[in-house]
Amino acid sequence: MALGPLSCASQIDAQSSPAPVVAVDCNGADLGPAEVAAGAAIAAARGARVILFGPAAELGEPPAGVEVVDAPVSIAKSADPASAVRANPDASIVQAARAVAGGRAQALVCAGGTGAALAAGLFNIKRTRGIYRPALALPVPIPGSPVTLLDVGANAVVRREHLVQFAFMGAALSSTVLGVARPRVGLLSNGEEAGRGSPLVVEAHAELVQRADAAAQAFEFVGNVEGGDVTSGVADVIVTDGFTGNVALKLIEGVAQTILGAVRDAAMSSTRGKLGGMLLRGALGGFRAEIDPELQGGAYLLGLRRLGVVPHGRFSRTGFAEAILRAERGAREDIVGQTERALASAGALRESPMSAPDASLAQTE
Amino acid sequence: MALGPLSCASQIDAQSSPAPVVAVDCNGADLGPAEVAAGAAIAAARGARVILFGPAAELGEPPAGVEVVDAPVSIAKSADPASAVRANPDASIVQAARAVAGGRAQALVCAGGTGAALAAGLFNIKRTRGIYRPALALPVPIPGSPVTLLDVGANAVVRREHLVQFAFMGAALSSTVLGVARPRVGLLSNGEEAGRGSPLVVEAHAELVQRADAAAQAFEFVGNVEGGDVTSGVADVIVTDGFTGNVALKLIEGVAQTILGAVRDAAMSSTRGKLGGMLLRGALGGFRAEIDPELQGGAYLLGLRRLGVVPHGRFSRTGFAEAILRAERGAREDIVGQTERALASAGALRESPMSAPDASLAQTE
Repeated sequence: MALGPLSCASQIDAQSSPAPVVAVDCNGADLGPAEVAAGAAIAAARGARVILFGPAAELGEPPAGVEVVDAPVSIAKSADPASAVRANPDASIVQAARAVAGGRAQALVCAGGTGAALAAGLFNIKRTRGIYRPALALPVPIPGSPVTLLDVGANAVVRREHLVQFAFMGAALSSTVLGVARPRVGLLSNGEEAGRGSPLVVEAHAELVQRADAAAQAFEFVGNVEGGDVTSGVADVIVTDGFTGNVALKLIEGVAQTILGAVRDAAMSSTRGKLGGMLLRGALGGFRAEIDPELQGGAYLLGLRRLGVVPHGRFSRTGFAEAILRAERGAREDIVGQTERALASAGALRESPMSAPDASLAQTE
Repeated sequence: MALGPLSCASQIDAQSSPAPVVAVDCNGADLGPAEVAAGAAIAAARGARVILFGPAAELGEPPAGVEVVDAPVSIAKSADPASAVRANPDASIVQAARAVAGGRAQALVCAGGTGAALAAGLFNIKRTRGIYRPALALPVPIPGSPVTLLDVGANAVVRREHLVQFAFMGAALSSTVLGVARPRVGLLSNGEEAGRGSPLVVEAHAELVQRADAAAQAFEFVGNVEGGDVTSGVADVIVTDGFTGNVALKLIEGVAQTILGAVRDAAMSSTRGKLGGMLLRGALGGFRAEIDPELQGGAYLLGLRRLGVVPHGRFSRTGFAEAILRAERGAREDIVGQTERALASAGALRESPMSAPDASLAQTE
């Protein structure tokens, strides 16, 4: 497969990688645009270069390394993000995506509204050539066995070939960013055997087995994994559709919070328990930080010609700062180019001419 | 809708409810048939009447209240349960299901092999008239906010009308067995808004909204719920397809174990932590018991003309005893009849003639 047309984005990344600029949409955060600006200030103090897109009046005086573009229009809460992106060229997320598309910035961070980020990204930054669908990939901080889960919400419905590409995209992220030399990739199903799962999963399993040799440099396919395997350490990357992945992600957070809350309640239930809880606090504090979603910075939006990072809308400045730093690091490490090359060398890129982003988006929404 | 043909099973239940007999397939348990027999002995000591189907040579001398039928053939691990059920009329699960179909027992417990239990149940016990698909419903022991999740694995692929029936089936279970007067039923999705989710979820949501008035006596439809809501207490029943539900169930168990393990590790990491852990042990022990899947007894198999209960194959005798007691209580409380009546009075039963179980099974597997 010719590498010529694929290397374009990588070349630009290589040129700009010494100091990538991160375009940040400040609208959509639960705590408001000022909280995102506060996160950008933290990231800038740690060396990041940031352009903020949001209501300038709310963003305050930018510190060194941060530039502000007044973009008060928000489409973060739109029920129809694709139409909202088309109808609102001045919306903050659209301006931020355009800044990335035009080369003024090298990565995109969207503080709220995954749908809007996806739509603005598809229309402006566009998909990497040969990628069917962008996916949201989240490194989940499981103590002792971190795992990258994708898709966690970009595509509620997928096809076989999308899942197959997600395996390559997740593996490239895992090796590039997380330093896993040859990631073990599992396919989420309701049973470990090859024949178990929905017809979609059974088909994707068969194709991944068939491509195992071609993919061998990029990752090891470990077959189906079950829900319990997300925390068991059997895989470094777990592939699923955006519906199941989103449910799984939120379940993990909900169950972890509930269990830790119950431990706290147990500690508060008696004088003896209170003393025990006090003595444990230090050791548990480290663990709490380890699994804190804010300290992870959010999910990677993979499959566009530039990297996107999507933090939770409910994050505080800490989480937004981490998201910006994550985006900068990802651009510097050329996740986009590495993913392209892994897919190309395994022959897993789409070979037909890329369809218009509109058609893809209609299916996504 | 005529209630005549629907009340048949209920009448039989009413006649036999004073002392239901539970047919138990002993094959398929990870710890072997003897462990299931030990569970049956515990249940019998607490008043249950049990018929065990398994290799008599391994089951020992049955105590009072327990009868043994020698049925050494196991199809619990079959990759194609429907064919295995057809080809092995002497298999333990098939004999157990026939005992229930013929009225010798009033509920079925299968120690291992959900697929085999489902196939044997569909062929022999048969679906309740007007039910599209049986579903596995699991009361999940979330501390402070127990929730019934269904389907957790009977149907990897479902249609809109299946999800709608699952709402009624789960609500009937919740009110009958768990004593929730008017259960709040949520539909699992990747977003709370009505338009969020796969096309299937969007359609099911619309139909549940449309049926809300007719269903009002049986349950309150609270709309879409997200993964995080499984533990948040916003719903008593959460409806989903068997693929997502199975992933969710195993995730919940995996995350809970991982977090409790990490708390234990934190407690073991220092002298100070060890002392704290010791002081907390009593309070945490109660909590551990509260969320122990074994003490719940497993999932309810709903939608057949008799109740089934499917414990984890990895349970010990404790879990199998609970499963048998759960099945007996469910038969006594006439879950099957109550579910039928709830569905009938809301007009949610299938109106066309019931198709052959074979056709349904082909889709299920």
